[in-house]
Amino acid sequence: MPEPIGPRGFTRRRLLGGGAAAAGAVGLGAGAIALTGRDAGAAAPATEPFYGPHQAGVATAPQTHAAFVGFDLRPGLDRDDIAGVLKIWTGDAARLTQGAAALADTEPELAARPARLTVTVGLGPAVFTAAGLEHRRPAWLRPLPPFAIDRLEPGWSDGDLLLQICAEEATTVAHAVRVLCRSVTSLLTVRWVQRGFRDAAPGRTPRNLMGQVDGTVNIAAPDFDRLIWDDGAAQPWLAGGTSLVLRRIAMALDTWDEIDLEGRELTVGRKLGNGAPLTGSREFDEPDFAAVDAHGIPVIPPSAHIARARHTHDGERFLRRGYNYDDAPAPGQTSNSGLLFAAYQRDVDAQYLPVQQRLADFDALNVWTTPIGSSVFVIPPGVPEPGGYLGQTLFES
Amino acid sequence: MPEPIGPRGFTRRRLLGGGAAAAGAVGLGAGAIALTGRDAGAAAPATEPFYGPHQAGVATAPQTHAAFVGFDLRPGLDRDDIAGVLKIWTGDAARLTQGAAALADTEPELAARPARLTVTVGLGPAVFTAAGLEHRRPAWLRPLPPFAIDRLEPGWSDGDLLLQICAEEATTVAHAVRVLCRSVTSLLTVRWVQRGFRDAAPGRTPRNLMGQVDGTVNIAAPDFDRLIWDDGAAQPWLAGGTSLVLRRIAMALDTWDEIDLEGRELTVGRKLGNGAPLTGSREFDEPDFAAVDAHGIPVIPPSAHIARARHTHDGERFLRRGYNYDDAPAPGQTSNSGLLFAAYQRDVDAQYLPVQQRLADFDALNVWTTPIGSSVFVIPPGVPEPGGYLGQTLFES
Repeated sequence: MPEPIGPRGFTRRRLLGGGAAAAGAVGLGAGAIALTGRDAGAAAPATEPFYGPHQAGVATAPQTHAAFVGFDLRPGLDRDDIAGVLKIWTGDAARLTQGAAALADTEPELAARPARLTVTVGLGPAVFTAAGLEHRRPAWLRPLPPFAIDRLEPGWSDGDLLLQICAEEATTVAHAVRVLCRSVTSLLTVRWVQRGFRDAAPGRTPRNLMGQVDGTVNIAAPDFDRLIWDDGAAQPWLAGGTSLVLRRIAMALDTWDEIDLEGRELTVGRKLGNGAPLTGSREFDEPDFAAVDAHGIPVIPPSAHIARARHTHDGERFLRRGYNYDDAPAPGQTSNSGLLFAAYQRDVDAQYLPVQQRLADFDALNVWTTPIGSSVFVIPPGVPEPGGYLGQTLFES
Repeated sequence: MPEPIGPRGFTRRRLLGGGAAAAGAVGLGAGAIALTGRDAGAAAPATEPFYGPHQAGVATAPQTHAAFVGFDLRPGLDRDDIAGVLKIWTGDAARLTQGAAALADTEPELAARPARLTVTVGLGPAVFTAAGLEHRRPAWLRPLPPFAIDRLEPGWSDGDLLLQICAEEATTVAHAVRVLCRSVTSLLTVRWVQRGFRDAAPGRTPRNLMGQVDGTVNIAAPDFDRLIWDDGAAQPWLAGGTSLVLRRIAMALDTWDEIDLEGRELTVGRKLGNGAPLTGSREFDEPDFAAVDAHGIPVIPPSAHIARARHTHDGERFLRRGYNYDDAPAPGQTSNSGLLFAAYQRDVDAQYLPVQQRLADFDALNVWTTPIGSSVFVIPPGVPEPGGYLGQTLFES
């Protein structure tokens, strides 16, 4: 895979890392305030790097809180307008992620706890149309085909631009969402905001609100780079980028609550207690889909979620980095809960769609899960070093 | 203050503490699963005690996440029905807070990370009417009088019963809310759910979403017991209890963002950088409301928030334990943010109302803050030891 940063870039980045960026931002913006370490908090706040060949927020170890914000382009925007949005976001994200106030940050005090903040930007199909760059649109960048299980609501679907904002603290996420939305109100309107959370002991797989260990099958090195990051073969500007499929999946917890432990485990194909496949004893044991019991019945039913979700070959693997959601219930309801299912892959059509089609065709879990939102975004490569901006290779190469 | 627990109670509590309660719950309920320490998470999950003279969640060091749930009684309920709700909640809260599944917990796996969970129960005025116990209603238990600044929405106000659920993890809060709501659906309807968060370095005062250090003036020992916990003089059943005033305060961040740092600091009366009063240099410096500058102008304007909110005598003090909220904005809006202002005091009329009246009469901050929800609850005393239930002294004494 072409590495879009040379050794010089890495050297400059070392020189211009977190500390320098933070110091440089003090005094910027109307209400900016010099925050000393003592005032900002007792412990040194953790930061994730902003500059690099890839955007942060994909390979980054998942933070506990996330907000996904979908925007619509206001009518009549052109290429320069969209590049302008991306330049503003780049500058603000470079500061906020390092614990410095954004350029026009009106609550600069709230920037002092970055709490592993990452800001990840995505582009929807309309960006390529508005910018006159249809020839640079990845072939897979379009709404997913309709599935029989879908009950999609426009208010949770699509979107022309995406901000994915993740941090270990909800206050940090709230502040970043506000700053980044506010700076572009003349060009974009907010289509939806989806907030989520995930909690687990360090290094453990979190549970979803059905109680399942969720996200066991995932991608680690050395497969990660090959399966997630685009190599620029089809679209040179996209080298180092990837894609995000975001699905909002409502959980029917009231009816899920009616089935017993055995029914649940046969539905999922895993033990609820520790997430082990029904043919194993530990979470990361390989499931044995051929195993049968004394009566010849498969131990993991062919309809079980893990049997249907299983990749049939290496090229169907993708990164899962989802979050739970739990919003205020509608009148008369007990819960409004589910999953913000976030899947990252080089090629939506090759890696994601076959799995999604198998799940839509039949998955025992479908009785209790309903997709109510669906979006696809291209995640441009990262900004190698200060001076560049997100999407630069798309607009300028 | 009468201590409703004798030495024998303390001994029994020691014997029947967290470990025993957790062990006892394994195997309870339809879908209960024995969770070993290894499966529940790598680190031993932190717990807050459930049994004691006071309910947890008031004096407890504030957790990062909270949900306040307001319920309406279904028509026709009597005293036994309400006592039944409180018995169910007592049993479930005693288990959940110690990391054990609730009695009919349908996602028992989610109980394994209590994350300092506390469950605090409150009663609204209608409980006393429905139970035929009007003579036991504290005199201050009624909706606050209307204030000119109020723009109250019924969907965020009042309520016959309250659950305040706090924990360090959002997943824990979501699970506890669901379990506790679900078990009482035949008797109660959910009126509102208000979720919030607060983040700060250990021992530091958190910031609200306007960027202010919020909650500096608070109550610590030795004043806490005297000002917060009822002594039973007027209502013997209430000894060890307190009250909660919950106000949902919307912040007009778009217009707040239009004023500069000096304007903000004069509005609040504190420095935004470190929360110090304008007459001091550190957060906990005593404000000097008499101090004037070289021109004879007060350094802290008499209209400043901290000048108006200041108690005029010791008996006007109360405990602040609020949370930020940040919900999805309505179409066309950038933010839907504010504060779940939670005030605890022995006597709403004597301690809270005079301060609230001064703020409503004039507070420079009122331009940017609007109360849109308001509720008052009595918080019954705690359950001294296993076998009792929340509200027992009200119903049985």
